[in-house]
Amino acid sequence: MKSYHLRSGAGIDGLTLREHDDPRPAFGQVLLRVHATALSMRELLVLEGDYPLPVRDDVVPGCAGVGEVVAIGPGVTRVAPGDRVAATVFPDWIDGPFGLDYAAQLGSWRDGMLTDLALAGEQGLVRLPDHLSYAEAAALPLTAVTAWNALTGGRPALPGETVLTLGSGGVSLFALQLAKLAGARVIATTSSPAKAEQLRELGADEVVGYRATPEWGAEVRRLTDGRGVDRVVDVVGDLAQSLAATALGGEIALVGHWLGADTEGPALSSAALFNAGAVVRPLAVGSRAQFEAMNRVVASARLRPLVHREFGFDEVPEALRYYGKGGFVGNVVIRHS
Amino acid sequence: MKSYHLRSGAGIDGLTLREHDDPRPAFGQVLLRVHATALSMRELLVLEGDYPLPVRDDVVPGCAGVGEVVAIGPGVTRVAPGDRVAATVFPDWIDGPFGLDYAAQLGSWRDGMLTDLALAGEQGLVRLPDHLSYAEAAALPLTAVTAWNALTGGRPALPGETVLTLGSGGVSLFALQLAKLAGARVIATTSSPAKAEQLRELGADEVVGYRATPEWGAEVRRLTDGRGVDRVVDVVGDLAQSLAATALGGEIALVGHWLGADTEGPALSSAALFNAGAVVRPLAVGSRAQFEAMNRVVASARLRPLVHREFGFDEVPEALRYYGKGGFVGNVVIRHS
Amino acid sequence: MKSYHLRSGAGIDGLTLREHDDPRPAFGQVLLRVHATALSMRELLVLEGDYPLPVRDDVVPGCAGVGEVVAIGPGVTRVAPGDRVAATVFPDWIDGPFGLDYAAQLGSWRDGMLTDLALAGEQGLVRLPDHLSYAEAAALPLTAVTAWNALTGGRPALPGETVLTLGSGGVSLFALQLAKLAGARVIATTSSPAKAEQLRELGADEVVGYRATPEWGAEVRRLTDGRGVDRVVDVVGDLAQSLAATALGGEIALVGHWLGADTEGPALSSAALFNAGAVVRPLAVGSRAQFEAMNRVVASARLRPLVHREFGFDEVPEALRYYGKGGFVGNVVIRHS
Amino acid sequence: MKSYHLRSGAGIDGLTLREHDDPRPAFGQVLLRVHATALSMRELLVLEGDYPLPVRDDVVPGCAGVGEVVAIGPGVTRVAPGDRVAATVFPDWIDGPFGLDYAAQLGSWRDGMLTDLALAGEQGLVRLPDHLSYAEAAALPLTAVTAWNALTGGRPALPGETVLTLGSGGVSLFALQLAKLAGARVIATTSSPAKAEQLRELGADEVVGYRATPEWGAEVRRLTDGRGVDRVVDVVGDLAQSLAATALGGEIALVGHWLGADTEGPALSSAALFNAGAVVRPLAVGSRAQFEAMNRVVASARLRPLVHREFGFDEVPEALRYYGKGGFVGNVVIRHS
Repeated sequence: MKSYHLRSGAGIDGLTLREHDDPRPAFGQVLLRVHATALSMRELLVLEGDYPLPVRDDVVPGCAGVGEVVAIGPGVTRVAPGDRVAATVFPDWIDGPFGLDYAAQLGSWRDGMLTDLALAGEQGLVRLPDHLSYAEAAALPLTAVTAWNALTGGRPALPGETVLTLGSGGVSLFALQLAKLAGARVIATTSSPAKAEQLRELGADEVVGYRATPEWGAEVRRLTDGRGVDRVVDVVGDLAQSLAATALGGEIALVGHWLGADTEGPALSSAALFNAGAVVRPLAVGSRAQFEAMNRVVASARLRPLVHREFGFDEVPEALRYYGKGGFVGNVVIRHS
Repeated sequence: MKSYHLRSGAGIDGLTLREHDDPRPAFGQVLLRVHATALSMRELLVLEGDYPLPVRDDVVPGCAGVGEVVAIGPGVTRVAPGDRVAATVFPDWIDGPFGLDYAAQLGSWRDGMLTDLALAGEQGLVRLPDHLSYAEAAALPLTAVTAWNALTGGRPALPGETVLTLGSGGVSLFALQLAKLAGARVIATTSSPAKAEQLRELGADEVVGYRATPEWGAEVRRLTDGRGVDRVVDVVGDLAQSLAATALGGEIALVGHWLGADTEGPALSSAALFNAGAVVRPLAVGSRAQFEAMNRVVASARLRPLVHREFGFDEVPEALRYYGKGGFVGNVVIRHS
Repeated sequence: MKSYHLRSGAGIDGLTLREHDDPRPAFGQVLLRVHATALSMRELLVLEGDYPLPVRDDVVPGCAGVGEVVAIGPGVTRVAPGDRVAATVFPDWIDGPFGLDYAAQLGSWRDGMLTDLALAGEQGLVRLPDHLSYAEAAALPLTAVTAWNALTGGRPALPGETVLTLGSGGVSLFALQLAKLAGARVIATTSSPAKAEQLRELGADEVVGYRATPEWGAEVRRLTDGRGVDRVVDVVGDLAQSLAATALGGEIALVGHWLGADTEGPALSSAALFNAGAVVRPLAVGSRAQFEAMNRVVASARLRPLVHREFGFDEVPEALRYYGKGGFVGNVVIRHS
Repeated sequence: MKSYHLRSGAGIDGLTLREHDDPRPAFGQVLLRVHATALSMRELLVLEGDYPLPVRDDVVPGCAGVGEVVAIGPGVTRVAPGDRVAATVFPDWIDGPFGLDYAAQLGSWRDGMLTDLALAGEQGLVRLPDHLSYAEAAALPLTAVTAWNALTGGRPALPGETVLTLGSGGVSLFALQLAKLAGARVIATTSSPAKAEQLRELGADEVVGYRATPEWGAEVRRLTDGRGVDRVVDVVGDLAQSLAATALGGEIALVGHWLGADTEGPALSSAALFNAGAVVRPLAVGSRAQFEAMNRVVASARLRPLVHREFGFDEVPEALRYYGKGGFVGNVVIRHS
């Protein structure tokens, strides 16, 4: 078997691809043939040494991967050889709120998915919806679960509420699709008319250009008759604008505001938070229970994450560089075989 | 003005229609020209003396009505003359869980809507969605709000969950429509193939005939791969069957199980409740806040309650007798003018 | 009757005391003889023109007062003459989350309590616990309800959890007492050893001096074995320090962070909010239902708000100036008679 | 090592005590020297073949045990040799609501604690509070966690609320103690004046004799000024009386109403459930997260479960017979060494 390994802080150039003996699953473990891994900002932050959670040296990167069960260890009952599964990003997070006990993450502390054979505990696996290819399904463990948590992990979004999504990243697109399925009205922000069209095709009821309208918070509020939106899925947006857009009593799900990620935005004051009267709820991915609940609607609505481009397993460094440049819509996926 | 008045226990024959001087709204009050009232089982229970809440003698019956604001008293700011509004069934229930403080109900304790001019406190009014006629909107205050509370008042139904509705009463039909809008899968029970077809047209994913399948609880469970449904909107059904149909950890919203209403069902044991592992949540209509939240999705999805038949204001006794016989699908509405 | 009236922006010097005819309660209204009013930062902000909610010119100030029912208008059933009651700060907020519909506030938009006779809607009144004097009870409507909301309005504090309170203001002291009654461990911050002693007498398990320990967030975290506290009642504190003190998944109840109130604190980044992983929940007072729920424990535990000093009704300007200087522990109360 | 093994349906006489080779912990596993096991009704139901969950033949009985970590397998990080721990009754139930995925239970499906050496997955262990002996701590995994779940697992009990506990079983006694710590008022039912005294010593504010007052539901309601209690911890009580005792909007936590356990009570109707307006929430033990949350207050308040009588490891059959006769207050514990 072959795996990528990282040196934290050494960036993409610090990645090495190495040969190992094939592993055998121990008690409670499952051996997966990994078929696809979706790239994310986490990989870049981990490689650059900017990730807020601890990174173990020489760890296998890649937090979001899917594959096929090829062998199971003693005591395993949740899956069987041949099952198509995803590994959960936080394998110990089964249900309930996130906590320190669950912080050991794939691709930063535990060996991740940029490998052809992966060992996983059976509790950290979730079956894939049948209608998705491996490449499509690779977006589920991180991007889609995060979007689901953003919409349902606090007070669940109700039909008739208004949800604001920011930009065209994977989490935002999936949140848009899920919010429409949940009966919500969706306002989306974007930078360009071309992306605006894509957002409308995915179901956005209104699109606001954040370049043309730097004070987009006020514009979004205007689109809700001055009331403000009920919920924002704020993925590295300008939180001050999100606060301006949100209704008294609304909720801002804060996603991916890593260290330094928002250096362009103005500093916040606690008075701005207080006067907005909205709950700010940071979140990181979601639990296995949330993943399974989400899969039910992914399956019943036959939702398909958008795959923008696929790279081969040998092309991981190129794929990461491509990902880092941004400017695309949809997922960048490594095909392992 | 003319109003109907009841004698509790005297039934439909005890109704009288009487002339009064036109009222003037006092401080905080609003005068409505009532345009439509939807009939419900409550009217019959109140008239027959079988209603569990206290009934004031000579009260004006009719708990669910809609009309136009024709005058406002001093201090009124929530509505203005010309507004199309519904009166809330429990005028003091603004938000939060139901409680004794809010138990004064239209049509049993406070004067109800079977009148041509009604006085209401401004806090007990909700604006109507524009796309609905008065006859359609008359179903909102009782039937639709009850369905909304059943789906969202406990743990809100999530997209991808399975909801079970029972029969073709107004609450069940509206619950079916709302659940589909919320992204749920819906299983409905019914008595006849003709109604099954109507339920499918409204969006039911599966329909189970409870006559053909008396053990419909087991059949519903089978349709969920043995897991059981996440939620039942149990409107005077056989609770033992609902328990058999519900998943461990699911919720049964109990609606309209008035005294004697379920005499045909087998007696329950607390062991049956315990072993089912589902929460049983009784509910009665909903708060003003729930009504307003529901109106947002009624408006955005342009939902239309089904009007089965309209009667004139002089025909209230005939209309009540017709309603009591059952056998129809949709609302029976009094047109006041 | 005599009432104070304000000109927004004119400060304390803009207050006038004027004679009026005694009012008579209209439909649904209650006439109160006001016995005591507790002063708060709101009065100063309203007078100075710094309050974020709209201020009506010539309004009677004073948002937190208590008195005796002396007359009731037609239709009133919740109270009777002779009842000892508090007026709720937001008279329309009955239950559920705060919202724009409930924003008309005593003392800024509606006439407040710095008057000898006040008219109130019956829905905006709450009966007082028997064991409290009027002067003591005057702290309930604003200070105590805010503390209760901070502890129970989001996810309720559970026995065994750790609560952090900041300083010796009225909300913090009451939160400390309520948290101990709820079985929590309490860590309090303070500026001086004398106040530390008072906090310990009220039940604080640990006291941290924020002058001696400017990085008190880290110190509080150390006192929880690195885990962080479950909840902060953050009353105009330095939110960055509160974030540093709070557990992943904890909650910061944000109270009184008015415009400009935190100008001394460092600017926040959304990355700081995200990385803390704690929910930030702004709140303003609480609903009538919260007030009533709180009164049950105030009565059963015979809690007594601390009265620091009383002023006469003619001394309101002096009392406000005294209040504005700070430096005391407990409530400043106007005795109306 | 020696373990008891059962034949389902064969009762206490079907127990065998057998010798085995000492086990070695596999990957993720922990070897415990069991020091104490608390007996419960579950053991008797499992032995008699009356348990509603599946029972594996030859399984080691005993769902609630505590001991010392003597060895750990590869990959174990949550505990270390020497740690004093409890095994969770449902080892896969980490957090969130109970579900089928978590139903494999110690002592019925997985080998339980009536053994001197037990293997456990590291995720199914919880550290013990320092102040408790093993005999005392043996009551935590089943009895105490159930009481905690009953009080906090639905809407958490708030200070000032009224909680009703039934009788003097372990769950009821612990619920009484926890409810008092949470600031609640507690009404307890009992059969005898002697037990009434014990309940008062543990903190009960009121005690009602259910023999002297068969209609104790009405009596409890009278003690709450007609309002009803906010919460009932209903441990095999007469649910009809509990419904009569509970406030509109209150919650009845239903515990241990196994098949046949309530044959003496009158049959319920769904109308009785509906008219009570209280949520009925069945529950079974609790999650690991609930266990850990509870341990925080057990430790801080130095709560001690009451040990009624200890038996030696060779005396398990006698101990089970003794337990089955009832009539005592406190826990019956097996000391393994």
